[in-house]
Amino acid sequence: MSTVIDFQTDPSKYRHWRVEYDGPVATLFMDVDEAGGLFDGYELKLNSYDLGVDIELADIVQRMRFEHPEVKVVILRSGKDRVFCAGANIRMLGGAAHAHKVNFCKFTNETRNTYEAAEEDSGQKYIAAIRGACAGGGYELALACNHIMLTDDASSSVALPEVPLLAVLPGTGGLTRVTDKRRVRRDLADVFCSVEEGVKGRRAKDWRLVDEVIPNAKFDETVAARAREFAESSAKPDGLTGIALTPLDRTFTDDGVTYSALEVTVDRAARIATLTIHGPDGAPPANPQALHEEGAATWMLRLARELDDAILHLRLNEREAGLLVFKTQGDPEQVIAHEAALLGMDDWLATEILHYWKRVLKRVDLTSRSMVALVEHGSCFAGVLAELLWSVDRTYMMEDEFEGDNRPLATIRLSDGNFGRYPMSNGLTRLATRFLGDDAALSEAENNIGEALEAEEADELGLVTMILDDIDWDDEIRIFMEERASFSPDAMTGMEANLRFAGPETMETRIFGRLTAWQNWIFNRPNAVGETGALKRYGSGLRADLDMERV
Amino acid sequence: MSTVIDFQTDPSKYRHWRVEYDGPVATLFMDVDEAGGLFDGYELKLNSYDLGVDIELADIVQRMRFEHPEVKVVILRSGKDRVFCAGANIRMLGGAAHAHKVNFCKFTNETRNTYEAAEEDSGQKYIAAIRGACAGGGYELALACNHIMLTDDASSSVALPEVPLLAVLPGTGGLTRVTDKRRVRRDLADVFCSVEEGVKGRRAKDWRLVDEVIPNAKFDETVAARAREFAESSAKPDGLTGIALTPLDRTFTDDGVTYSALEVTVDRAARIATLTIHGPDGAPPANPQALHEEGAATWMLRLARELDDAILHLRLNEREAGLLVFKTQGDPEQVIAHEAALLGMDDWLATEILHYWKRVLKRVDLTSRSMVALVEHGSCFAGVLAELLWSVDRTYMMEDEFEGDNRPLATIRLSDGNFGRYPMSNGLTRLATRFLGDDAALSEAENNIGEALEAEEADELGLVTMILDDIDWDDEIRIFMEERASFSPDAMTGMEANLRFAGPETMETRIFGRLTAWQNWIFNRPNAVGETGALKRYGSGLRADLDMERV
Repeated sequence: MSTVIDFQTDPSKYRHWRVEYDGPVATLFMDVDEAGGLFDGYELKLNSYDLGVDIELADIVQRMRFEHPEVKVVILRSGKDRVFCAGANIRMLGGAAHAHKVNFCKFTNETRNTYEAAEEDSGQKYIAAIRGACAGGGYELALACNHIMLTDDASSSVALPEVPLLAVLPGTGGLTRVTDKRRVRRDLADVFCSVEEGVKGRRAKDWRLVDEVIPNAKFDETVAARAREFAESSAKPDGLTGIALTPLDRTFTDDGVTYSALEVTVDRAARIATLTIHGPDGAPPANPQALHEEGAATWMLRLARELDDAILHLRLNEREAGLLVFKTQGDPEQVIAHEAALLGMDDWLATEILHYWKRVLKRVDLTSRSMVALVEHGSCFAGVLAELLWSVDRTYMMEDEFEGDNRPLATIRLSDGNFGRYPMSNGLTRLATRFLGDDAALSEAENNIGEALEAEEADELGLVTMILDDIDWDDEIRIFMEERASFSPDAMTGMEANLRFAGPETMETRIFGRLTAWQNWIFNRPNAVGETGALKRYGSGLRADLDMERV
Repeated sequence: MSTVIDFQTDPSKYRHWRVEYDGPVATLFMDVDEAGGLFDGYELKLNSYDLGVDIELADIVQRMRFEHPEVKVVILRSGKDRVFCAGANIRMLGGAAHAHKVNFCKFTNETRNTYEAAEEDSGQKYIAAIRGACAGGGYELALACNHIMLTDDASSSVALPEVPLLAVLPGTGGLTRVTDKRRVRRDLADVFCSVEEGVKGRRAKDWRLVDEVIPNAKFDETVAARAREFAESSAKPDGLTGIALTPLDRTFTDDGVTYSALEVTVDRAARIATLTIHGPDGAPPANPQALHEEGAATWMLRLARELDDAILHLRLNEREAGLLVFKTQGDPEQVIAHEAALLGMDDWLATEILHYWKRVLKRVDLTSRSMVALVEHGSCFAGVLAELLWSVDRTYMMEDEFEGDNRPLATIRLSDGNFGRYPMSNGLTRLATRFLGDDAALSEAENNIGEALEAEEADELGLVTMILDDIDWDDEIRIFMEERASFSPDAMTGMEANLRFAGPETMETRIFGRLTAWQNWIFNRPNAVGETGALKRYGSGLRADLDMERV
């Protein structure tokens, strides 16, 4: 699996999904092309999916929000007759490297979270309309919708058969959403997750696995009626007009990727990838009209898309780059101005761009690499870009003038945006997480909104890990990078997953913490992935050979 | 490692700890006997510990609460000159089976939680007085204390060197307590967890790793003064007199263990262990005086100790018993009466016994086995014993009369105790977790306190998973047990760890969920446990050979 995976696509390239738009209601048909797998060696039968299928779904969900703001309700259904979705493709999972499995699950989880949040963030409610078998990852697709409708016929059911069938967990939030979102009683959840054939009809509703069970003959009309009803009761204004998400300005090179506002260079020998963000080169849009005219070219949206793509590219295609280094260069006042323009506009597109930054920053938080930010002279870690300082594991900042460096002195600028617009998965801002239980420190930071904070002030406020002058900078940074690159990547993954998310837990953090960690553990166990394990033997006619010792 | 591990000990047998009692202040010296390892092949140098050392500590903590209620402050310190504690023994970890490592960490975590909670539950505050190196599990011993004092000399430091040194995580709550309890800033925590040599002196205080740093010459007197101060400001009454925790009435047989109020039988071929609890055979103690006279013989305390021991025995010594079956036999009114006696007494011992039940029930929740309760005719799942119904994964209840069975009809009885006295690790009662988000169901249960609920009523109230009559009982139970025994133990572990703890998370659930799951994952990775991994190569002079791919 050394093919480079491209996370960019557009409707002209879709092989697995199609969307029908009808005013405020869109219908999203999953109709997976069996021969359209991302890799060789498996067929995507029964609407099963691989990463390629999910990349298209993520693109649709994203375009729905930017290109189709008129949509208030999205109906997710199958384009096939007898099956809704059979879940992640088992042969693909059986053949994939551990790192691919883990990153596949992470990406699909992020996509589920994105459309689950679309109702609250953007007034777009996803409905699952289930006809046919809906199993495993298929039911998890539905669980992330905010209304689940199931037809009542002999064969339609919902199921999480992973445990009995494959000896792994439902890996896309299923267990967590069953207990925490659907509030299925835990003993019933235990029964549900143990029966291969799943649950259908009335019982599915009684157990809260679905919201409605509908006689088959009335299914389509009821789904349509429900969609109209939800659309009519939506608080979202009618008739918004979208912008086009034009293709990214992106060039792959041998050692990195060049975007319009972002440069990624990979030093494979040192196992380091450096992401250098360029600040805006002009003034922000003056009003909503100007913003809509700029569309995908406006700096805040353009950079968000580029950073999102870069992170995904590094996760999947540069797996040995264990350390991500974030740098910025540009005018911090302009960054503040561009962010302030969006914060101050009463406009759906401005809001949508800020929500997108929230998601991109969460994607950074959840990236299983060591991360560091270097606040150099000439940098622009201000407002939304300052969030990166507290998303990464450590921050080093230049103090005082450096010989031969005539760039403006390194500063950090806080904005209103840092105090609520970009919450982490745990529901807190990055600063609140950083200063957990230290309200005075958080208030003191807030008192400094708008100030150009030089190194000593930033250090005093607790905004950076370490400040270094010209004498120490090079050596300290070099030593840190060499040391970090020498540590076990697994220990780093575990340590970072624990240290990054202090404080309260949410369904999201539970999915990425508890559930994912257990799944990763199982993905390493011979009972699942060994030559005689359940994943490998699936479909072979042979039962898995299990070591029955409990740990 | 097939030796049977015994979790019962008493002061006459301690090899690694000694306690000095001085009125309200007790001093607990860790002085590990190098030659006293539980298994061959390693020496417990530098106050490093294995499960045997921790079993003694757990015994001390337990006796402190029952035998020494006069104690208000416990000072934890080292009996050795130059080292506080070097943490878990690495050679032991390197040589131990995965299941032993995991269960070792779980038990040590439970012991830490127990003395951490002793201040709130029982007015016994643990202070760590650190002189000498305090590393890894050694610092985690201190982190679970509620006040940490560090001497300021050239060699005393606190450290979590697991990641750089061993490529594993601090496995006893260290990462979670650093961020969530000590509120160490996450970037400083990242630095702290990356430096082998740890942090000492003033910086340890500035970073919140310790509460006080004290000049070496004044260390002992300051520790003594602080202990007196805490004791004097304690709200706990003076001069309480303890009871003796006499040896358990316990007999091991070939296929189980017989206690006075509990029978454990293990069917190794079927991989099932059955725990049958016997209700009280007499009236409860009428008043505090009678309770103190009964002491360790009183049914509520006796059974708690026996059940605790049985669970630990099954976890470590019967690793293939994948299904635990809980049964009870006895008079439910007597169970209610015994519990009510304690609930109604204003007496430290009564309260302590109820706290102990809280801990034992948490131990059941956290046991990584499938668990089922069978509510048979003649059973006494009432009050505190009814908690087991919602601790296990599923509950089956007999409905109506069974041919040839003249025992009283199966009933369930709820008590006040079920609505607050035995919270789970997540801070909620088992019923509140079960009915998460369904306040009506919870109220309806509360309205039925004291009723003898037969199968249909219990089912209606959602207290059991399934009710079965004479015709179905045997077959259904048999099929369930066979099916459960055939599933992958790893998938069961992951599924149960997710389904059992719906709702909010606490430091405890984060330790047993997120942190433990990541640690278990790492404990399976070649970078840690492979032949050239860091755990195996520790002390060999060779660096670990790491696969640098991130997942």
